[in-house]
Amino acid sequence: MAKVFLPKGSRDLMPAMMNRRLMVIDTVREVFARYGFEPLETPAFERIETLTGKYGDEGEKLMFRILKRGAGGEAGEVDLALRYDLTVPLARVMAMNPGIPLPFKRSQIQPVWRAERPQKGRFREFYQCDVDTIGTDSPIADAECIAVVHDALTSLGLTDFTIRLNHRQILRALAEAIDAAEQETSMLQALDKLDKIGREGVEKEMIERGFSVEQVHRLWSYLDGAPIPGAAEPEAHLRQIFELALDLGVDPERVQIDRTLARGLDYYTGPVFETVLNGGYSGSISGGGRYDGLIGMFSGKGDVPAVGVSLGIERIFMLMEEMGLMPDTETTTQVWATVFSETTRSATLEAAAILRQAGIRVQVSAREGKLGKQFKDASTRGVPFALVCGPDEAAAGTVVLKNLSTGEQFTGTPEQVAIKLGA
Amino acid sequence: MAKVFLPKGSRDLMPAMMNRRLMVIDTVREVFARYGFEPLETPAFERIETLTGKYGDEGEKLMFRILKRGAGGEAGEVDLALRYDLTVPLARVMAMNPGIPLPFKRSQIQPVWRAERPQKGRFREFYQCDVDTIGTDSPIADAECIAVVHDALTSLGLTDFTIRLNHRQILRALAEAIDAAEQETSMLQALDKLDKIGREGVEKEMIERGFSVEQVHRLWSYLDGAPIPGAAEPEAHLRQIFELALDLGVDPERVQIDRTLARGLDYYTGPVFETVLNGGYSGSISGGGRYDGLIGMFSGKGDVPAVGVSLGIERIFMLMEEMGLMPDTETTTQVWATVFSETTRSATLEAAAILRQAGIRVQVSAREGKLGKQFKDASTRGVPFALVCGPDEAAAGTVVLKNLSTGEQFTGTPEQVAIKLGA
Repeated sequence: MAKVFLPKGSRDLMPAMMNRRLMVIDTVREVFARYGFEPLETPAFERIETLTGKYGDEGEKLMFRILKRGAGGEAGEVDLALRYDLTVPLARVMAMNPGIPLPFKRSQIQPVWRAERPQKGRFREFYQCDVDTIGTDSPIADAECIAVVHDALTSLGLTDFTIRLNHRQILRALAEAIDAAEQETSMLQALDKLDKIGREGVEKEMIERGFSVEQVHRLWSYLDGAPIPGAAEPEAHLRQIFELALDLGVDPERVQIDRTLARGLDYYTGPVFETVLNGGYSGSISGGGRYDGLIGMFSGKGDVPAVGVSLGIERIFMLMEEMGLMPDTETTTQVWATVFSETTRSATLEAAAILRQAGIRVQVSAREGKLGKQFKDASTRGVPFALVCGPDEAAAGTVVLKNLSTGEQFTGTPEQVAIKLGA
Repeated sequence: MAKVFLPKGSRDLMPAMMNRRLMVIDTVREVFARYGFEPLETPAFERIETLTGKYGDEGEKLMFRILKRGAGGEAGEVDLALRYDLTVPLARVMAMNPGIPLPFKRSQIQPVWRAERPQKGRFREFYQCDVDTIGTDSPIADAECIAVVHDALTSLGLTDFTIRLNHRQILRALAEAIDAAEQETSMLQALDKLDKIGREGVEKEMIERGFSVEQVHRLWSYLDGAPIPGAAEPEAHLRQIFELALDLGVDPERVQIDRTLARGLDYYTGPVFETVLNGGYSGSISGGGRYDGLIGMFSGKGDVPAVGVSLGIERIFMLMEEMGLMPDTETTTQVWATVFSETTRSATLEAAAILRQAGIRVQVSAREGKLGKQFKDASTRGVPFALVCGPDEAAAGTVVLKNLSTGEQFTGTPEQVAIKLGA
């Protein structure tokens, strides 16, 4: 039989990794729920016409298209494609459920698929993790995006981060203030690289893009704090959101207004947020903002107020591994129940059942006899305790709990062992 | 803008439904973990050659095929297809990870895709929920399949069920005993309908299939308890598994050996299990068995011992709704924090933050002012409590918690309110 392979750029999430990912996802989901963001799932695929024209030429090329079943498929006809992000499906849900009470606050944690060139830590199937509030322009909704990211990261033990805030209209005023209203996008594309290439690099790039040295210098003076004409209103708006975020419990050390922040400006219309880990970790772990123009794309009702934030959950998994924030166990199994012999097997299974009833995670050995081998099976898998029930214990109604690192033993009834294990 | 639609046979899982589904999945996952079944996820798609030839002509037609990206896709070339079940991906994982410690016990709860004709309660994307133990022929592994289903259903409140057990080799002996060794599959296909069409119906069908009246009557005598020649060994094996399941805590009232059970016999090789709800619910909610021939399909190493069981999770969701076993809340949000006015907004947000810190799920109203409207927003969504912080409360550092069904009110600090809510 031929060898089998995974599809290019995909991976299996084996139990050791899945246990950690589920722990992170459960934590994040709980924080989302505390803010009233409730879970939504949409199908893996959408009709091709729902996705076409939404992600630009580049995105279109990366989409996984599904062949029509039955007649038509033979001719290469495509009627579906795999979800490319979670925002277009949300817009479709809003268009198809016009009666939904607003504001609609949803969380969505599901994979998306993009046929990007595979590289280290980048996959063609990866999870996105979004919260969005649709149908209100209340600044509380914007502040909650900041607070929910703050609480989620803190709950995960990622405490040394900075949430940067800016406002699309401040950036527009900035472009106008340097007489570059028509070159706003170009200015922002250059500015977006500030973290990576520094002021010198941005200056060089802007000049290549046709800005004058004088314009660049005016830009620096505004970024250094000179008042930007016409920016008073968005600045007050941003300041208000900042204050509301502090009311919501956000640590003022972990959030800052930053005029240089220039992210995803093609569809954001108001405040924008981005979170970076301090201490030399490049790239963001969360980003979002207000995007009042997108959600109405299918309903034809014009702008629908919308604000949301995305946690870079795959990046967070990786960073937590690197930083040692993930539990280092390979398994969540707590007890390896050894089987001494066929005659004590029933007593062992009954003890395992009592432990499980108490919430303890027990794997019963498939191997019988030689205990040394069974202890080794447990240790190989990282299971911390072994349970032994020999003829003496079976007769006495007890079992022995053995700590496989220290060798320490405890003898008692299964109920006592459960208590010993913290049940 | 044109109207948008969901793909045929697909659906959105809106928050009210998702909250319930997640509750069920969390419960099931916890039970699985207590037995040492740890979570695995595989990619949504597999290489087309991994899936081709595994599901018969019928299955092949129902597969969602993905067009090759870039050159080739234009010509209708297909290189991937969406996962059709969770068993073939498991066989691939086993073949690609030859060093994995055995037995390998994994749970997998993920969607699969089949382009079946849509009908009520049947979707083209649906979750499967499997546990399997690979690499041991220990009867404990078979017994655990029974026990884990027993515990999962019991934990979900589905208590009136029967787990039926049979053995592939008993069925083979049965076919031989009625001189129909060559017609075993035909006999089983007829027998499989016993629940639906009764003995009379099965008899009619068997005669149409070429069995004699005398053969059918001999069959009934064996099914009524006459000893089946050559079945002693599998019967002892099944009896042992039955006893081990009782040791594991399975209620003897909820499990029975049933010689008529004839499921999925094309790939099962030993014990088979099926669970039905008592009280007139037709169809099974769980099924499984030993299938030693499948897992080795890619490794070319011949038979690999394997036993597993699948919970019919979509059916279980539906039945739990019907039976009123799902929580009847539309939302998991506990408190609707009203905003009395802009001046008390900060105090409200601070109170919300304290409740959230204590684990309470709070949604802050996007609407300000008129409390009646805000109470109505909460009631519409099924949120049980409202929080009010007017100028007096803000000055006193208190808030009012209002039970929206009874009208009952409690005034206290946010910390006191959290305790009142059981935090």
